[in-house]
This record gives sequence, structure tokens and C-alpha cells, in this order.
Amino acid sequence: MNGAQALIRTLVDSEVDVCFMNPGTSEMHFVHELDQVPGMRSVLALFEGVATGAADGYARMAGRPAAVLLHLGPGLGNGLANLHNARRAKTPVVNIVGDHATYHAKYDAPLQSDIASIAAGVSGWIRTATDPEHVARDAADTVAASYGPPGQVATLILPADVCWLPAPGPVGPTPRTAPAVVPAERIEDVAAAVRSGRTAILVGGTAMTEGALRDVARIGAATGARALAETFPARAERGAGLPVVERLAYLAEFAQAQLDGVEHLVLVDAAHPVSFFAYPDKASDLVPEGCSVHVLAAPDEDAPRALADLVAALDAGDAEVPTAPAGRPDRPTGALNAETLALAIGALLPEGAVVADEGNTGGLFVSGFTAGAPRHDWLCLTGGSIGYGLPVATGAAVAVPDRKVLCLEADGSGMYTLQALWTQARLGLDVTTVVLNNGSYAVLNMELDRVGAGAAGEKAREMLDIPGLDYVSLARGMGVPATRATTAEEFTTQLEQALATDGPALVEAMIPATL
Amino acid sequence: MNGAQALIRTLVDSEVDVCFMNPGTSEMHFVHELDQVPGMRSVLALFEGVATGAADGYARMAGRPAAVLLHLGPGLGNGLANLHNARRAKTPVVNIVGDHATYHAKYDAPLQSDIASIAAGVSGWIRTATDPEHVARDAADTVAASYGPPGQVATLILPADVCWLPAPGPVGPTPRTAPAVVPAERIEDVAAAVRSGRTAILVGGTAMTEGALRDVARIGAATGARALAETFPARAERGAGLPVVERLAYLAEFAQAQLDGVEHLVLVDAAHPVSFFAYPDKASDLVPEGCSVHVLAAPDEDAPRALADLVAALDAGDAEVPTAPAGRPDRPTGALNAETLALAIGALLPEGAVVADEGNTGGLFVSGFTAGAPRHDWLCLTGGSIGYGLPVATGAAVAVPDRKVLCLEADGSGMYTLQALWTQARLGLDVTTVVLNNGSYAVLNMELDRVGAGAAGEKAREMLDIPGLDYVSLARGMGVPATRATTAEEFTTQLEQALATDGPALVEAMIPATL
Repeated sequence: MNGAQALIRTLVDSEVDVCFMNPGTSEMHFVHELDQVPGMRSVLALFEGVATGAADGYARMAGRPAAVLLHLGPGLGNGLANLHNARRAKTPVVNIVGDHATYHAKYDAPLQSDIASIAAGVSGWIRTATDPEHVARDAADTVAASYGPPGQVATLILPADVCWLPAPGPVGPTPRTAPAVVPAERIEDVAAAVRSGRTAILVGGTAMTEGALRDVARIGAATGARALAETFPARAERGAGLPVVERLAYLAEFAQAQLDGVEHLVLVDAAHPVSFFAYPDKASDLVPEGCSVHVLAAPDEDAPRALADLVAALDAGDAEVPTAPAGRPDRPTGALNAETLALAIGALLPEGAVVADEGNTGGLFVSGFTAGAPRHDWLCLTGGSIGYGLPVATGAAVAVPDRKVLCLEADGSGMYTLQALWTQARLGLDVTTVVLNNGSYAVLNMELDRVGAGAAGEKAREMLDIPGLDYVSLARGMGVPATRATTAEEFTTQLEQALATDGPALVEAMIPATL
Repeated sequence: MNGAQALIRTLVDSEVDVCFMNPGTSEMHFVHELDQVPGMRSVLALFEGVATGAADGYARMAGRPAAVLLHLGPGLGNGLANLHNARRAKTPVVNIVGDHATYHAKYDAPLQSDIASIAAGVSGWIRTATDPEHVARDAADTVAASYGPPGQVATLILPADVCWLPAPGPVGPTPRTAPAVVPAERIEDVAAAVRSGRTAILVGGTAMTEGALRDVARIGAATGARALAETFPARAERGAGLPVVERLAYLAEFAQAQLDGVEHLVLVDAAHPVSFFAYPDKASDLVPEGCSVHVLAAPDEDAPRALADLVAALDAGDAEVPTAPAGRPDRPTGALNAETLALAIGALLPEGAVVADEGNTGGLFVSGFTAGAPRHDWLCLTGGSIGYGLPVATGAAVAVPDRKVLCLEADGSGMYTLQALWTQARLGLDVTTVVLNNGSYAVLNMELDRVGAGAAGEKAREMLDIPGLDYVSLARGMGVPATRATTAEEFTTQLEQALATDGPALVEAMIPATL
């Protein structure tokens, strides 16, 4: 057995059995050994950003990491943006980057580069495999490291000769670190804070699941504390019968309004609220003056358990949990725009759907109009690096093949990782993509104004408008059936048909750039 | 005037007047100021790898750098692969990476990342602008740094507040460093070596221009020294009436055969020949045992002048220069494959064409069949990071709008930076793209065998085949007219029509995966 086979077998033994990849010459032994390890599923992406984003989406839904196989520094570079998003999502990713053979590096061949330096910014953990004797343990350690807690991108740099030389064989899983239990003293301190004044509980990460959200709602019902969710959760469970948690707004001024008057802000696996970008003469830190910030559970701690403990400390266990009533909007008619598009999705979202949301400005109303839809999961762009939607939807569909994935994709963002559609077509993944085509980087048109730069001139406007994209043709070019909708009725009918399709389909929704 | 305007004006004053960009919120002041500086042309790309590759292609043809504007660490990551290629091409690139406002970094907002760390591997020079008072000088210094010598990616990290705060105004160009003159003693040493035994002169970089190549040919005619060119030159001048210089083969075994028996290897702005990848039981260093290696001109030295001096030292000035005779193959008939495709291109390549060659295995014969075509430039994939062709063709077309650009693009490679077609369509760039569609990562099928991994099983095969891409639809989806050819006659006719088109056009050539 060579190093590659020992590594792949070890991954499977550590319950990593899907690998999204875009390999090159230095990964050919890895690729060859795939056929020797039946337990490993390999999924080809035609661009590395698709592979890394798919690994993110997979792990968000599967609850365990996928592996990624990339080709040297440039391949890692191509995958970096979605690894950045995975890092912000605290997603476990087993990120394997093939490298030249150990002895070849000194020759500075054309593809030689400093992989560790490129990987540093997105990886919580990095190791370079140096010999086949230890590569199996390296693999097991990478898997364990990816779990954190919190989940992180664990990068294993894998030289080609470590793959091709003989290796002793696979090893068992490396023990994982469990999330730390929040000490009782801190629970009491937070309980005292909640009792002492106007409180908001800001939840995120691992606290966006049903049980934790019910506990937040119980606390709210018992104490009047307001529940807020982080702006872009990695995965939120929501829909009819689940507690409604308002998300902190993306726009800093709106978020400040949401936090206005709060005296105690309790963070539950959520970051201190800051402005997404800096703006002249606007605050970066969104917490009101004089408000005390309390960390109930940090990302490496057991947030759901901390909430349960807080419920107990506050005697809130019997509080009634307000939940979203079941209800869908009527099918919309008339012009197709951000509102009617959202109404149609609200009318049709299937039970158990997974929504990969990169609708951006055009998708603004979808969350609101699906609040009463049957229970579903909502995945967000956690790191702000656009081009996450199509890949994450792809990975999610691999993770939960019995559920419908709905990808809301803005026209601008979709172009970064369009190649995901090919993987969807090849594997027949059950993804319905809605492209919100407004011919514009609409969010930047708004931001240009918000940064106070002044009105856009002709050249600036040309940098913000993106006319002429025909997503129907683009989708068909990769084997995904597609239709275009220009009215609310057309969109509703086409979306209904796409959702009824067992496999990938795309609906291009032509909407105005202004809300 | 704010910092952004001072910076843009300084770029223009330093003769950098094209900026390929994919901006975000932190770059909105830069975008706004474009309208205040008429001399700056801004070109939008829908993906950062298109912007960086276009800057590479632009500078290869214009002889001076373009600027690139990217959005934070993830935007830089998306552009990294083509910056890697630019680094290997020794192309000057003014790489501007927008960042959060200086005071915002500490809040670790979602898009915060360590930009300098990501940039390190591809940049020969990095600076972070820290205040608007000095940003103009920072810009001028970045331009000067990009020239090297040798040319390099010079990265300026540009915080948003440095752009939006008031600045004193533009500054004049920073003085550039001239390439060093090779000392007479070294010229004499190399001349002695050339006279003393079987010599090969390996030229690359700045020595791939007509004058330098004529000098290499003179030396060959006078002394018997063999002329070889580096495997993947950034820009080679070639065609009827110019000296023919055989390129060192990509496959190490072929390159070794080319170098077999050489006693003196003279490097002229070319790297020591090494294998592109490492292979079990094959050499990484391709220079024959006992062969002396002499550096006539290093990349930071004046290679054309050194060759002229060497001609003088060898009394070769009167030697007759053998050149490629004018001649084209006949229009091919029958099956469309790598050979007939190459024949058709040889029959039709227009005078003054710029060929951006990422044809890979399918394009193997094109160089040979165009050797006698009218004079043209040939651009290669210098760094091995695929997805260079469409962007480099785009940038070249911006640089030399009066010349036809022919992009040879493999189907697999084309998918990495497909978005370039949109920019071509928007600007009406005169690029004819030939997609060599063999439904396969054919080079990896070959490499799988060469690395000695053994025959591919079913899963391995699935990672190497990429069926189902329809480039006609993909091109139309971005506004580029396209046709598909399945016979040699169809291809020849369609290529002729595309070349006759003033603006972008794409011909998809369906060819077998095997040569």
C-alpha cells in the first residue's frame, strides 16, 4: 500500500468519505488509489472554488467534514475565497493540498509556491506531511483538527512522493476535543445580567438549531430578553413551528436600531456585532454605549448546553415558546421583482428544503415570506466572499440527497463559481437554482452611496452594471435545464416545475435592480 | 482631492492607464474617482482571475504594466493563480488590493483577512498604504517596483480610509531601475565556453524578441551552438522571416533528449532546466551530467545587449541568420483532430496575430504548423496554473486593439476563467477563441500514466473526464457569438469567419481526447 491509499483509508475510517477535488499531476497517485478504497466518494469540480464551497455546504448539512483535494499553491488560491467563507462559518474542512515531491521543491519548477503561506489566513491548523510512514496519522490528525472546536479548515500539505512511496497502512481516528462546558459561575453571572436590565441574546453558530433556539425563546418569554441571530448564520433551522429569531441587519444603521436601548448583550456562539465594512463617520462597533457584553458561550464551548443551563438558572423551563405559525403567501401575479419573487418562493418552498442563500439585494424579502413555510434549513454567506451559493448548494445536495436544495443566486455572485452547475448536472443533484438577474452589482450601487463617495459617473456606473448575462444559456452549457421568467406568473410556474424535477434545474428571474 | 484620486492620477502620470478590476465596497471611492481622471481606462471583470490574467496579457503586449484592483483577501485569492503565472512570466503588474479602513481591521469583520500573507507568494514587492498623505508616492513606487527588473507583481494594499481622506495630490513617476549590463568579463567567459565544446543556448524572457533571437541565430551559424527556447516563454516573436528556435519540451524525457550531449549550456534570461513535475525514478534536473551551465544574462540583466556583446566577442556579426521560410499548410479536410485543427490554424493565422496558447494536449501541433505563417506573437502559460488563456487574450486585445488575438483554449482550462468572455463581449474585443473540446483533462490522463500510478480505474477515470460541456451555449450566455465544428472543413470555415469578424467570436472544436 502506498501513502495515498493509507491516507484515503484513514479518512474513511475517520468518517470522512466524500472528497471534492480538482486534482493535477502531483495528485495522480491519490486519484489512482480512489479505486482501491470503495468507501471514499470522489466528486470532481471544474474549479477549485466549487470544491471548497461544496465541502463547506456538505459539512454544514452532514455535520461532519468532507475532504478537499487541491493542486498546489495556485489550486489553493482558486479555492481560497470559499475556504474563507468556511472559516467564518466555523465549518470543519479537511483541506488537502497536493505539492511537488519533497526533493523537487528546491528546483523552483514553474508551479512551485509557498503553499503554507497561502493557506495560513484561512486555516486554523496546518501540517505538511513529510514521509509516508506518518501520512496516515497526519490524515487522522487533520480530521480531528478540523472539528476544532470550533470547526475549522485543517490543511494538510501532501507532497507527491509521500503519496507514491510505500506506507505501513491506515490508522484509526485521532481522538477529538469536545466543546468545553461553560462553568456554572458564568451561567449565574449571565442570568443575573439578564434579570437586571434590557437584554438581547445574540445567537449564532451551533446555537442556531431547534433545541437551542427554543431555549432562547423560553428565556425571552420568561424574562423579556430579546432574541437576535447573527447576520449570516452558517445554518439556521427555521420555518413553521420553530421559534422566530430576527437576524441582525447587514446595514449597520439598521443593526444599531435593533440594538438601541439594550443594556446587556449576551453572545451565544456569536461574534461581537461590528459593521461589515467601515464607512466614513459611521461606527464600526455596533454595540450601544454603556451596554455590557457577556459571552455566554464562546465558539469552542457547548452553546446549546449553556443555553439549557441558563434556562434552568432563570427558571424558564416552563415558559411557553412562541413559534412561527404555518402559513404561506398566495401565488403572486404581475411584475416580477424582489417582492413577488419572494412571495413565489414562500408559496412553494418544499418541506425539508435546504436554502443556500446568496440572493443578496434581490433576495431581501425571501426570508420574511418563508418564515411560515414548512420547516427548512437556511444557509448564509458567512464570510462575505461572493460565489458561495452554487458550490454550497452542490455540497449540501451531496450531503442530504433526500432533501431539495434551493439555491438563491445573485447574477453577479453566480459568475464567480458558475462551474458548480456542471457538477450538479453530472451527479444529477437535486438542486433548484434561482438566479436573481438584475444586471447589476446592485449591492455596490447601494454601497457607493453609503460610503459617501457621491453620485456615480459614467465610468463608475460601468463598473457596477453587468448587463448581458444569459443564465439560461450558461446553465445549458453545463447540462442543467433552465428557463427564464419575466413575470411573477412565469416565475411561479417555472419554479414549481423546477422544484418538481428530480435533479438540477435553473430558473432565471429577470428582476429590476432597484428594490 | 481624496487619496483615491491622487493615486489614480499618479498611476496615469506613471503611464499606467488601464485598470482591470473587480471591486467591492472597500474600493467604492476608487471607483467613484475614475470619472475624475479621464486618462484612466477601467475594465470590469466578473471574476478576479480574469482581471489578473488580463493585466498579465496586457503588459506582455503593451510592454508596460496595467493596474489591477481587487477586493480584500478573498478577491486577491481569486486572482492569485493568474498572478502566479504573471510572476513566472516576469510580467510587471501593479496589483492594488483594497482593504478595510485602517481603524476597522481590529474588529475582525467577516471579510477581514491577512492580505499580505496571501500576496507574499506571488509578489516581488509589497507595501501597505497607511495614510493619504503618502498614497500618491506609494502608487508611483508600486509602478516602479513592478518593472523590477525583472518585471514582477508589485502589490499595494490600499485601506479604504486612505482612499476617502483628503490627499495632497498626485506625484510624478518614481525612477525605475534599468536592467544591469552584463560585464565584459562574463561575455568573454561565455564566448570561451561556446568555442570550447558542444553548446546549447537556452533563451527566454526578454531574449525572445526578434533582435535577440537573430543574435542567437548568428551565434549558432558561426559556432554551431544550438538555439533552444524555454518551454513556455511569456512572449515569443516568431513566424516567416524570423529565426526558428526550438522550444525545450514539456515532457522531461523529451527535454533530456534535446539536451543530450550538450557540454555547455548558456542561459539567457532562462531558468535552469528542470522537470515541470517530479516523477518516481525520473530526474528533476534535466541538465546532462558533466554539462557546464553558464548564465550569460540573469533575469535582472540586459539579455539582448548581452547577446549582442556575445555576437561581437565571437565575431559572429556577419553570420547569415537562418529564418523560417514563408509557407502555410493547405486547408485540411476530413476528421477534426489535433493535427487537422493545427493545419487549419496554420492555413489561416493572420499577420500580426497574437496567439494566447492554452491549447494543452489538443494544441500540440499548432506551433509547428504556424512556423511559416506571417509574423506573429506567441504567449504561453508560464506558471502552469491553468485558466490563463481567456484572460490573457482579453488583456492582450486591450493592449493592441489593432491586432487579432487568437486564443487557443483547452476545454478543461477554459472553465477556470470563463468569465473573460463577458468582458470581451462588453468591450467588443477582437479575440477569436478556439476551444479544443476533447471532453477530458487529457494531460492528466497522460500524467497518470507517467507518474507510474498504474491504469486508471473507474473512479479515477471519472476524475479525469469532463464530458458534457457545451461551449457554444456558454459563450452565447456571455454575449460572444459561437459555433461548433466537428469536421476539419467545418472548423476551417468557421475559424475563417471568426477571424474575419471584428470583435469576439468563439469556435468550439470537437476533437478526440487521444492524439
